[in-house]
Amino acid sequence: MMDSLDTFRLYVNDGLSDEEIAAQAARYQPLAQDLRDLIVLSIQSRGGDDDILAARKHLSDAKSILERDRETGPYGTRFNDSGTFRTWGNAAIGLRNPIAPPLDLQFEDDGRVWADFHLHAGYEGPAGFAHGGVSALVLDQLLGDTARHAGAPGMTGTLTVKYRQPTPLGDLRCEALLDRIEGAKAFAMGTISGPDGVCVEAEGVFIAPKWMREQREHTGVQGVQ
Amino acid sequence: MMDSLDTFRLYVNDGLSDEEIAAQAARYQPLAQDLRDLIVLSIQSRGGDDDILAARKHLSDAKSILERDRETGPYGTRFNDSGTFRTWGNAAIGLRNPIAPPLDLQFEDDGRVWADFHLHAGYEGPAGFAHGGVSALVLDQLLGDTARHAGAPGMTGTLTVKYRQPTPLGDLRCEALLDRIEGAKAFAMGTISGPDGVCVEAEGVFIAPKWMREQREHTGVQGVQ
Repeated sequence: MMDSLDTFRLYVNDGLSDEEIAAQAARYQPLAQDLRDLIVLSIQSRGGDDDILAARKHLSDAKSILERDRETGPYGTRFNDSGTFRTWGNAAIGLRNPIAPPLDLQFEDDGRVWADFHLHAGYEGPAGFAHGGVSALVLDQLLGDTARHAGAPGMTGTLTVKYRQPTPLGDLRCEALLDRIEGAKAFAMGTISGPDGVCVEAEGVFIAPKWMREQREHTGVQGVQ
Repeated sequence: MMDSLDTFRLYVNDGLSDEEIAAQAARYQPLAQDLRDLIVLSIQSRGGDDDILAARKHLSDAKSILERDRETGPYGTRFNDSGTFRTWGNAAIGLRNPIAPPLDLQFEDDGRVWADFHLHAGYEGPAGFAHGGVSALVLDQLLGDTARHAGAPGMTGTLTVKYRQPTPLGDLRCEALLDRIEGAKAFAMGTISGPDGVCVEAEGVFIAPKWMREQREHTGVQGVQ
């Protein structure tokens, strides 16, 4: 496991202005979207050897350009003085992460968190359906976000996922609700629904471990991220 | 939800020879690996506007090539007469899926299923650690595979995941074991371990629904997939 120094380094106020953050979002978000399209084509293309080699030459050229000036570790959690948080590497919601569907989270005043999202062919598990683990990924994120939204962020302690019917690929909705907070523990629940109703239900317990509470004291952040 | 016809269409004997399957694997696997590298660079590149636009031009050219001859739906489960199965679009293990770490599953005679795997920066959740939902994705796959390996494949009914310590990114191992089969239900358990021991534990119940049993009768498949 990483030591405290590494963890602090990955939870940083990097001092960017809101304008610079907006410029970065405009620059990098389309790159991640291009790669989402290519993930689907990686599964669906019927190209022969010559076509695949030609496509790979372009990917190699793109890699060379992107590698010229790069970081080498995970993105972490970055924020600035005005409280704008970026978890742009996050596997479920990361703006710069092609693995993320992504999820455009909506936070309601009553504590609900929800997102309409789309699962393309790259999220398949059983033939033609969403992978059960992808549903768990989406639910883990939203349940955890209800705790964060309430000012009690934590790491997942337990996640229980019940599959009521196969989850189709395509357009889906995830909704989550904070049930209660008891000491360092936040209890949340949520669902994923498709055209035929609820497909998956989940309950989760999210715990703020000592190192996370210390980290937050160390960085002085009191925000909802 | 898709109707029975769609489901049958995605679970097909496509009559390919083992040689053609090997040729396809050699053709498409490196393409998926290139895209894994690009997923990481999408998160890590510090390129400015000009570099990102230049890289995106190459990605656009690659897309045009790969789109010339393509399928449009999920990959499904394909097999041939010699019993070689391909779930190459699977989000956890798909050979053609850049989202998959991937997992190189090892099946032991005693029923255990395990895999050494690597989580890159695109699998991040809490700053510097693996996303809890990604651990759930890996465990859902391996627990389900113990049931498949025992000839009792099913879809996930319930998955319970307990997080014992933060899961670092990097090199990890997942191990799973079938506990018992009761009628249409298979019960499995497993762990993910890192350099400091077990990080995540899971229990799962996998159920073969009526339509899946009918599908298997319809296609005549008695294999372990």
